Amino acid sequence: MGDDCAVTDSRANLITCDSLVYGRHFDDSATPRLAGAKLLKRNLSDVAAMGGLPCEAVVAMFLPKNVSIAWLEGFTKSLAKCAVDHSTAIVGGDIAESPTLAATLTLTGRARRPLTRGTGNVGDVIYVGGPLGMSIKGHHLTFEPRIEQGMFLASAPEVTSCMDLTDGLAKDLPSLAGEKLCAALDPDEIPPSSETIEECGDDYEKIIRHVLCDGEDYELVFSVKPEAAESFERAWEDRFGGPVFRIGKFVARESGGPRLVDAKTGESLDDYHGYEHLG
Amino acid sequence: MGDDCAVTDSRANLITCDSLVYGRHFDDSATPRLAGAKLLKRNLSDVAAMGGLPCEAVVAMFLPKNVSIAWLEGFTKSLAKCAVDHSTAIVGGDIAESPTLAATLTLTGRARRPLTRGTGNVGDVIYVGGPLGMSIKGHHLTFEPRIEQGMFLASAPEVTSCMDLTDGLAKDLPSLAGEKLCAALDPDEIPPSSETIEECGDDYEKIIRHVLCDGEDYELVFSVKPEAAESFERAWEDRFGGPVFRIGKFVARESGGPRLVDAKTGESLDDYHGYEHLG
Repeated sequence: MGDDCAVTDSRANLITCDSLVYGRHFDDSATPRLAGAKLLKRNLSDVAAMGGLPCEAVVAMFLPKNVSIAWLEGFTKSLAKCAVDHSTAIVGGDIAESPTLAATLTLTGRARRPLTRGTGNVGDVIYVGGPLGMSIKGHHLTFEPRIEQGMFLASAPEVTSCMDLTDGLAKDLPSLAGEKLCAALDPDEIPPSSETIEECGDDYEKIIRHVLCDGEDYELVFSVKPEAAESFERAWEDRFGGPVFRIGKFVARESGGPRLVDAKTGESLDDYHGYEHLG
Repeated sequence: MGDDCAVTDSRANLITCDSLVYGRHFDDSATPRLAGAKLLKRNLSDVAAMGGLPCEAVVAMFLPKNVSIAWLEGFTKSLAKCAVDHSTAIVGGDIAESPTLAATLTLTGRARRPLTRGTGNVGDVIYVGGPLGMSIKGHHLTFEPRIEQGMFLASAPEVTSCMDLTDGLAKDLPSLAGEKLCAALDPDEIPPSSETIEECGDDYEKIIRHVLCDGEDYELVFSVKPEAAESFERAWEDRFGGPVFRIGKFVARESGGPRLVDAKTGESLDDYHGYEHLG
């Protein structure tokens, strides 16, 4: 800090940035502590989705004249703690005055084999790393970025594509699949979060809507070569002590055809829109 | 683009970020074209100040719902052109909705020997790379980041410290000097820009005030070992076909003493405050 740039010493080959805007990504119902950690964790989740180890971050803050010192202290302290917890160095930043409270964090990362979207093949099995839905109950603030899962996936050559779930499974999966593949899902196999079960009881239709459409799950969704699926599942369980969730597979997409179908009925699931946002 | 992170392939060891806020760093008097280029050039100037070659950038945009497509197109096209002009790749970004139009750009760079502040010594000669003052007349938008000058300085081992002038010479020089040095300036030798001369005529006091206090000059200010000063000046002229401006030297600073003095009279110049801002 104090020079015109921060001097970094890493072999980083990944970079990502993400922002938070007051009134849009957080408001007075979120403590500054949760907001500060969320800013970093959104970016950590992007590095996790690429199978990377996070390295260094710079933070740009936009502060209204009347921002409270207590808020700012809570935000920055929590950001710093979250960085330490994830072995990430905050090496520089910028402060600008603005009518709207906001912040941008840029994070670098390192991945020997970066995981990407649109690189799966017909027949690949689609997995999700954890339960989905009703993130709005608190998970969108308290989630843990899946860095260890991402690094495990990057080290497994049978993993063909990966991303993190931010806009909801129904909206994100077409992006994982790319133009030429269609995701054939078995909705029964998508694991609902405990908050989703609590919200929906045994209303099956409602559960499906939440696991497909709710945003900000921050779980990883990825594809694995079919011939390696069983050994992959055993390796995952050995590594993480819990299951990975097989939710469908990639099939060839007809030109102009649906991007998401029910694997049993073949019906299009494209009408399940994910969380629509600009942020 | 399209993945969770951009994959970079550089040996970058510098990182910096800088923001623009509508109403603060630009307004309707600046065309979107000038604003877009300025966002990148502010960051390029920071990399230049460290003696680096710019590498890759990510851009976070904050857009009000009613932002005009024409404005956005002008801004992004000009940003892209400016990147090409400076061999910089814009590799990723983020868009968030916000009531206040703003943008943050994070830039990486590479320097074999990063130039820093506070690393000069007693006796070092202080130089500025170009004329100063009255940037508000347009230079703050049309300036060229001094990347070639910065790389030349980084390759010259006699250069001991460097920064770019953003807040005004009187405010920035103490930062270049560090706590233990005082900058003894010869105000007559500080080159005024043509806009400053036009504004001030032969009002010497007014000229001094503008060259010392005006912000956003984006020229480099740096120090050179005294025994190498003359050969350095010749090498600069050979390289750039024009003069470098010797404006003073570092002297020992007494504890609690002034950080900026008139070299002839010894009087403190600390009362010349630079441009005061938060951005």
